[in-house]
Amino acid sequence: MSTDPIPADATTPVSTTAEAAGTDAQDASQVANAWLQRYAQAAAAGEAAGVAELFEEEGFWRDLVAMTWNLHTAEGRSQIRDMLAEVGPGAWPRDIDVTSAETADGVTTVMFTYLNDTFTGKGIARLRDGSCWTFLSSAQELVAHPEPKGRRRILGAEHGANNMSPENWLDRRIKRQEGFGIDEQPYVLVVGGGQGGIGLGARLRRLGVPALIIDKHPRPGDQWRNRYHSLCLHDPVWYDHMPYLPFPDDWPVFSPKDKIADWLESYVKVMELDYWSSTEAKSATYDEESGTWTVTVTRDGEDRILKPTHLVLATGMSGIPNLPDVPGADRFRGDIHHSSKHPGGAKYRGKKAVVVGSNNSAHDICGDLWENGADVTMLQRSSTHIVKSDSLMTHTLGPLYSEDAVEAGIYHDTADLIFASIPYRILADFQRPAFDAIRQQDKEFYEALEKAGFMLDFGADDSGLFLKYLRRASGYYIDIGASDLVARGEIKLVSPAVVAELTETGVKLEDGQELEADVVVFATGYGSMNGWAAQLIDQDVADRVGKCWGLGSDTPKDPGPWEGELRNMWKPTQVENLWFHGGNLHQSRHYSRYLSLQLKARLEGIDTPVYALAESHHIE
Amino acid sequence: MSTDPIPADATTPVSTTAEAAGTDAQDASQVANAWLQRYAQAAAAGEAAGVAELFEEEGFWRDLVAMTWNLHTAEGRSQIRDMLAEVGPGAWPRDIDVTSAETADGVTTVMFTYLNDTFTGKGIARLRDGSCWTFLSSAQELVAHPEPKGRRRILGAEHGANNMSPENWLDRRIKRQEGFGIDEQPYVLVVGGGQGGIGLGARLRRLGVPALIIDKHPRPGDQWRNRYHSLCLHDPVWYDHMPYLPFPDDWPVFSPKDKIADWLESYVKVMELDYWSSTEAKSATYDEESGTWTVTVTRDGEDRILKPTHLVLATGMSGIPNLPDVPGADRFRGDIHHSSKHPGGAKYRGKKAVVVGSNNSAHDICGDLWENGADVTMLQRSSTHIVKSDSLMTHTLGPLYSEDAVEAGIYHDTADLIFASIPYRILADFQRPAFDAIRQQDKEFYEALEKAGFMLDFGADDSGLFLKYLRRASGYYIDIGASDLVARGEIKLVSPAVVAELTETGVKLEDGQELEADVVVFATGYGSMNGWAAQLIDQDVADRVGKCWGLGSDTPKDPGPWEGELRNMWKPTQVENLWFHGGNLHQSRHYSRYLSLQLKARLEGIDTPVYALAESHHIE
Repeated sequence: MSTDPIPADATTPVSTTAEAAGTDAQDASQVANAWLQRYAQAAAAGEAAGVAELFEEEGFWRDLVAMTWNLHTAEGRSQIRDMLAEVGPGAWPRDIDVTSAETADGVTTVMFTYLNDTFTGKGIARLRDGSCWTFLSSAQELVAHPEPKGRRRILGAEHGANNMSPENWLDRRIKRQEGFGIDEQPYVLVVGGGQGGIGLGARLRRLGVPALIIDKHPRPGDQWRNRYHSLCLHDPVWYDHMPYLPFPDDWPVFSPKDKIADWLESYVKVMELDYWSSTEAKSATYDEESGTWTVTVTRDGEDRILKPTHLVLATGMSGIPNLPDVPGADRFRGDIHHSSKHPGGAKYRGKKAVVVGSNNSAHDICGDLWENGADVTMLQRSSTHIVKSDSLMTHTLGPLYSEDAVEAGIYHDTADLIFASIPYRILADFQRPAFDAIRQQDKEFYEALEKAGFMLDFGADDSGLFLKYLRRASGYYIDIGASDLVARGEIKLVSPAVVAELTETGVKLEDGQELEADVVVFATGYGSMNGWAAQLIDQDVADRVGKCWGLGSDTPKDPGPWEGELRNMWKPTQVENLWFHGGNLHQSRHYSRYLSLQLKARLEGIDTPVYALAESHHIE
Repeated sequence: MSTDPIPADATTPVSTTAEAAGTDAQDASQVANAWLQRYAQAAAAGEAAGVAELFEEEGFWRDLVAMTWNLHTAEGRSQIRDMLAEVGPGAWPRDIDVTSAETADGVTTVMFTYLNDTFTGKGIARLRDGSCWTFLSSAQELVAHPEPKGRRRILGAEHGANNMSPENWLDRRIKRQEGFGIDEQPYVLVVGGGQGGIGLGARLRRLGVPALIIDKHPRPGDQWRNRYHSLCLHDPVWYDHMPYLPFPDDWPVFSPKDKIADWLESYVKVMELDYWSSTEAKSATYDEESGTWTVTVTRDGEDRILKPTHLVLATGMSGIPNLPDVPGADRFRGDIHHSSKHPGGAKYRGKKAVVVGSNNSAHDICGDLWENGADVTMLQRSSTHIVKSDSLMTHTLGPLYSEDAVEAGIYHDTADLIFASIPYRILADFQRPAFDAIRQQDKEFYEALEKAGFMLDFGADDSGLFLKYLRRASGYYIDIGASDLVARGEIKLVSPAVVAELTETGVKLEDGQELEADVVVFATGYGSMNGWAAQLIDQDVADRVGKCWGLGSDTPKDPGPWEGELRNMWKPTQVENLWFHGGNLHQSRHYSRYLSLQLKARLEGIDTPVYALAESHHIE
């Protein structure tokens, strides 16, 4: 959870400065209106081909649920035409209302609100030379079921003697929360109550979807509390807001782990989420005929059967821990565990520790062990992308998630949409310049690491952190200090290192080197999220879902074919009524909107024809 | 706490509509600039008389801490001149920056930010015929100690191996909270952890003032939880926000009591307040030489000595309960209690209840008892001002605290300031038209009540609820349904009624009438807040403080002399380092800013010469 990377500076040509004032702004507005007028004419005629003609030959239309009941990017004019034809004109944006238009580097970026038959939406288009380069349509609210906020908020009390109910708010709250599986079935069961499950739960609650979140820990936020002592979020505050209830304006830039844990616990309470702590899902089966799941959960030691219609796995985008099968593990006399089970460095004061791996967890744990006075050796197996937290803040986050952005009127919801408006196919081109700049700026830092023997990379195509995160969710470290320790030799490094076997007293490498160890930590990553489905449901269902995460970029650990969206995340899968939710704080916040709308529509019996449901891909 | 009345429609001539667009807006801006230019010239010359000349002969200058280190209203040109002369030009507003100017009914209302030697401030002036009618100056932040928000927020984590501390956020948090009285003394001790103490605590925490809040209940929010079952706030959501962390935008209009309790409990946690539950203050003495209090508190049964510099009583603006000494109370066989001890109506199902009084608590309790199937009789002793909650919302709250206001860009902080900008001396004139309209609109409602024998009033000068609240904090009921029950005879009424004595089985009135009763509830109000000081410190200190609350209007229960501010509230008293905090949610929120700034300035050793410290008035 501390490994969330962040979008890059170059993600948006939307100027946040005053440059675009005066005539420039007028020009941008004219460009926007001219194109939108042509769009309106073509759309009114109901001609998919006519609308597609307004796009560049290689243009993009990304749709977030509004049109496709899917997360889908149509790439190129013909895919756009096919998509529009299939979904029909009722789903196309109409009544477009421009909220901003700015031109920079020959690209006019237009932000707007709109309507279609089903949704109110928000969109962003990038225009150049009279054509549309990228178009984003996103569902905001169901027209028939708007959010009960502002003027639509509930009264809370039906004042008046004739409306007195024998049950008050608390009675109803307890009855609802405790009665799931007995009095009522949750329409949605969310397995996993970290920030992902909680944020989704808040959206479902607002939409009036009966949802229960279950989590194995005793208290919401324990997912953070149980982590290592000195941990603070690696992402800054502007990136970390939960839906609906932003942090107060003096919240620290980097939340300490127990502080964010307390926030999440309070969030569950004040957002009135139905949340069962100390509850584990033991098994789940789906009955196609009734269209419901049967899920056995154990709550505080007692079994209960739940029959939700939809099952959402929000157990962490890191799937099941990869613990390699190393010869000799049974004879090693010390502790062995996966990074996810690291008990904190205090246990190993004065001891010898070997950490296998060189990504985020490996660095975090090495730092923690060093801080606690252990003798630490990191074994690097392959090259790692390192980027300093400060540099990320300066070069990549600034325009979207920062005090600058806030002062320019770009709050996180808008930032999320701007970031989403860049099709994944071209995202690397937007990101690369920022990471080139970081590489230049932090030259000495990188040289020191290389001098210490550390193998560095900047991603398969030098596109940096965020692409690596989207493609494989591994292979990087956001540096908050451990890299200095590596460079200075405080954390010892063996690189490259291949573990051959464990001995009674330590680790033997393939080159014959032997390292004494009291503890060996395997920071060797995680499987795909569909592993959770295998564990909870069965392998067949997991296989039908296929790999979760990754774009299909055909770069290391992200095998093709190209999908253009994150596989199986926040959208319908090949398994009916099974959903995957997760990602970093920004993604969980943003995509929980679309997942909650998909679920609400199904609850309300709205027709939800999924366009271009993705195939499953088993490749590990 | 459910009795908070609300400001009236007519409180502000600031137009929230688009009327004032175009040339009107330009005119308003010109009027504002012309006057401000004259002000700037006179102020630059340092001539108090010159500045005072810019005011109407009967003009007002209200200052909230910024200039006077007091809450003080100078009434008329000569008082304004004297005040300006005494505080000196360094305290006068300069660098005034107009944020809005609008003209309505010949009055131009100007809102602005400004600076003086000590504070950044906000102000509101009303101009007519070239002169200033009312002027508000308010302290916002200390120039030398701005709030650590936005760009000034703390980093939270000192990332980097060299900054690793053995203590994390949680360690420090626990150490600080638990160590008060042992490792460290709180600079401020806040007695009472309801919304008043909590809101003040949040402001002090943000300003870096070591403050401890103590409360006798087991959990924050219990002050609400323990009240009657069906209670919801009588004030709507826009009025009820706490400092810094507004409710989400789907919060119910009227918060159920347990929901607001949960919010307060979460607020204490996420705002990192130092709060001791289950803690009672037993005694307090002040040592003038050292300038510190010695306060003995019992926490979970254990005594601890605290030595704060400042003591804030935030135990509720209702002081100690008034329980009249009725003959025969000892022989009455049923239950007798004050309204504040009402255990909830469920205990009295099928029983006979007599409630003495006809204000808010009496109505609430009668409604609760009726709801629970008791046979209820209300004894009205004198006339009561009744106003329907809905009518208050429509006629009085709308322009400042409503969805309309929010959509017009008037959030609660701005609304608070606008309301504060009307000097108390002329507030009745602003309020009367709204209550005249209510009286007209709800004619049938009032007629039905009178037909049932209920004695009505609209305040001493027909100025309605808010003035009654400010003058005496009693004598009214915000109707949320119980009045209908009275009108329909579901709640029986005896009016006028004077209790002569209690018998073994009931209540005997002076007119000879006897009422059977299983329970008698005395909804007979509360004493002044200085009663808390008598209880905790001693009677001498309570007398030196004198009466709290009330303006000195010489209307019933608000004896003169005229003070022009609420006596002893949120401002220095005649007793050094003793403060009173409270009021409804709006007042607690708004005035906690000024109280926290006064305390912060003292902590930092800033000179705080109090202008026009009010005399004490003992009159009960």
